[in-house]
Amino acid sequence: MCFGFDSDFDIRISDLKKIMKNINVGIIGLGTVGGGVAKALLEKESFIFERSGVSVKLLKAYDKDKKKIKKLGLPSRVIATDPVEIFGNTNVDILVELIGGIHPAQEMIMKAIQASKHIVTANKALLAEQGERIFNAAKNSGSLIGFEASVGGAMPVIKVLHESFSSNRISAIYGIVNGTCNYVMHKMMEANCGMADALKEAKAKGIAEQDPKLDVAGIDSCHKLCILTMLAFGCFVTPKDVYIEGIKHIDLQDIVYARNWGYDIKLLAIAKFDKCALQLRVHPTLIPLSHLLSAVKNEDNAVFIKGDMIGDSMIYGKGAGRMPAASSVVSDIIDIAKCINRRAINLASSIKSWESGCKMKLSRMGDLQTRYYLRFSAIDEPGVLSSISNVLAKNKISIATVTQKQRNKGEPVPIVMLTHEAREASMEKALKDIDKLPCIKKRTVRIRMER
Amino acid sequence: MCFGFDSDFDIRISDLKKIMKNINVGIIGLGTVGGGVAKALLEKESFIFERSGVSVKLLKAYDKDKKKIKKLGLPSRVIATDPVEIFGNTNVDILVELIGGIHPAQEMIMKAIQASKHIVTANKALLAEQGERIFNAAKNSGSLIGFEASVGGAMPVIKVLHESFSSNRISAIYGIVNGTCNYVMHKMMEANCGMADALKEAKAKGIAEQDPKLDVAGIDSCHKLCILTMLAFGCFVTPKDVYIEGIKHIDLQDIVYARNWGYDIKLLAIAKFDKCALQLRVHPTLIPLSHLLSAVKNEDNAVFIKGDMIGDSMIYGKGAGRMPAASSVVSDIIDIAKCINRRAINLASSIKSWESGCKMKLSRMGDLQTRYYLRFSAIDEPGVLSSISNVLAKNKISIATVTQKQRNKGEPVPIVMLTHEAREASMEKALKDIDKLPCIKKRTVRIRMER
Repeated sequence: MCFGFDSDFDIRISDLKKIMKNINVGIIGLGTVGGGVAKALLEKESFIFERSGVSVKLLKAYDKDKKKIKKLGLPSRVIATDPVEIFGNTNVDILVELIGGIHPAQEMIMKAIQASKHIVTANKALLAEQGERIFNAAKNSGSLIGFEASVGGAMPVIKVLHESFSSNRISAIYGIVNGTCNYVMHKMMEANCGMADALKEAKAKGIAEQDPKLDVAGIDSCHKLCILTMLAFGCFVTPKDVYIEGIKHIDLQDIVYARNWGYDIKLLAIAKFDKCALQLRVHPTLIPLSHLLSAVKNEDNAVFIKGDMIGDSMIYGKGAGRMPAASSVVSDIIDIAKCINRRAINLASSIKSWESGCKMKLSRMGDLQTRYYLRFSAIDEPGVLSSISNVLAKNKISIATVTQKQRNKGEPVPIVMLTHEAREASMEKALKDIDKLPCIKKRTVRIRMER
Repeated sequence: MCFGFDSDFDIRISDLKKIMKNINVGIIGLGTVGGGVAKALLEKESFIFERSGVSVKLLKAYDKDKKKIKKLGLPSRVIATDPVEIFGNTNVDILVELIGGIHPAQEMIMKAIQASKHIVTANKALLAEQGERIFNAAKNSGSLIGFEASVGGAMPVIKVLHESFSSNRISAIYGIVNGTCNYVMHKMMEANCGMADALKEAKAKGIAEQDPKLDVAGIDSCHKLCILTMLAFGCFVTPKDVYIEGIKHIDLQDIVYARNWGYDIKLLAIAKFDKCALQLRVHPTLIPLSHLLSAVKNEDNAVFIKGDMIGDSMIYGKGAGRMPAASSVVSDIIDIAKCINRRAINLASSIKSWESGCKMKLSRMGDLQTRYYLRFSAIDEPGVLSSISNVLAKNKISIATVTQKQRNKGEPVPIVMLTHEAREASMEKALKDIDKLPCIKKRTVRIRMER
């Protein structure tokens, strides 16, 4: 961050408006975030000019749902009745795409790019799946693309990764990037309830979508991980490169056992550079209660970044919500507005990594070395633990702690264990064999650990 | 953050070097941070170019201590034998000032600004005391000033505050910005030891200076608070505007009592906008153990930011250390290099606030409304608590919790209490009266609380 003035522009504030171009913004999609952006641009125009020195105006806003527009009470001059009034409008400098999903967002963005408009989007699915195509198109047309709001609402992880830590070789980036899952697991622990109840409350509070499938299955976290990976490691990856496991199989008792041993369970999105290859995975993870991420509660988000110069760093913020996400969209608009006024090559950066980075070797999930939490559902009879530990030993997995609290002779009871570090492929093999043992009554629950 | 290329610059990486100007850097001060910056610039030149698209070169480096230079093993071509080889050198684009303290750093920076050089500095004392003068001089000469490393080492709070949250009205910013104090208080709790022992260990580990006076007394935190206030609220303040209380009077038993009640004690730097006035204060503070800041251990730093759009946000990172601080200095160098290449008005931003902001009303410490932790050293005899609570009641201070664990008839024992919210001026008056009571044997310890 640097302050000051270019020597060509030794000017006063009264002169600034005359020199600076008004930047016109068109918004497509007036849902939660889009409505917040429209509101902020209309209400904060002069505040933004005072703080940032750029004049940004909402020119047109569109949503196919007329009721949404009405509810927002926007002035009629900014209401568009067709999206073409925005991406076909030569006066619109920046298209803000907030409809989400791949289609028709992709087509709209590509059209706007072809018309040399700049883009601000929060569309994580689109960037994860089609990032390479969109960035290449933007490069050819000279369009700038802002996407701070695509990962973690108000959490400025995109800017920090790309600008603040630009001289760092990043070795790992991992965090809580899905508010719904974090809320649900925090609630289960806090209210001592099952996942269904926690999810019901999350929906009632507007934290979870009515159909939270993408969140609970880890897909949303995977999209965000693809975007973070691109920035941290300079290579394009897509969801098919990521190992994904959701939170569905997590039971309240897992959370309780973990806490008794000094751990919390969080759904983490993890990108780690290890042994010359990149691990990309989303799964529930045990982290020590003393870890900062363990203090990230409810629907909040946080991302941990490890770099060769910075050591450990963390960015925390609201993961979702109207105004937090709108704040990130507006900061992108301001950044682009500054760039337009400066005729900037914004972030000529990363070019080489964008071009060469895709050759980066991806780590196979089977090669992962980590510690594990295991919960077996086994018949309570002599010799069970011995059968299980035999299989583990054969696969070179050693046990760190084991506990069996309930006793119910002849019935299935939980046997819970923490292992020392082991290979994922060995664990896979061991669990396959263990789950075939006659004493095992349900599929074994396995949760990976992070320090 | 936005990605892309200006349409005037549709270029390939192979052409980029021809178009872009090499940016030459001169470093004055090769201590911990300066040595790290020199090392990073020399070793990471091509990495930085690949990632950021700018070519940054270390041209000259100077330190008055010849032994330091020798120890670093810098190539002889970059070693300057007189600082004038740097600030008097027309080829140096950016002066990196890392000698610290007011003099002669101020004179060197002013000379460099007059020569239209850009500045990167980590000098919190200088910016806190002379920020207004330096920024005005820079404005007149067209110099850019980077100072990310002045607050919290690798923690990118300056950029985030100024760029990511630029559309937010900030209502509060507070955090742990002194690694020494945080380490000492964390250690006392962890090792169950007194402050002297904790400080000794901090010195042995190189975390505390040999003379840690500025840290322990809260002065260093105050300097950083002045800089954060400037960015968050757009007004220049100096240390004389800040209420300062260090950690010297904190005893191990205070930390233990606080923890028993679910609180941690942290030295916080706090800037809060309340009732149309700005509170600026540095003091030990009780925060709930469930607060994210409570998970910030050892010498780490973290800053909490509350804005009207973002809600709560936190930035966490290494507060000090060679490479973390060097990372921030280098990111400023890269930002300025990008600006030079773009002929940018970097952050024409905040102009109005810089000019008008100083009229912002500062809150009087006496008007603060907060909860308090109090530890009285009182003779163990009947009627003591009644005398104390009478004085509190007279001053409209009500008690939330009170405890007296030790009993030692006729001898001084601790009586510890948490109050409900009260006015600072009333608390001052009450404590003055209480400390005059014959049953009170030592000055009462008072620690403010934050939610």
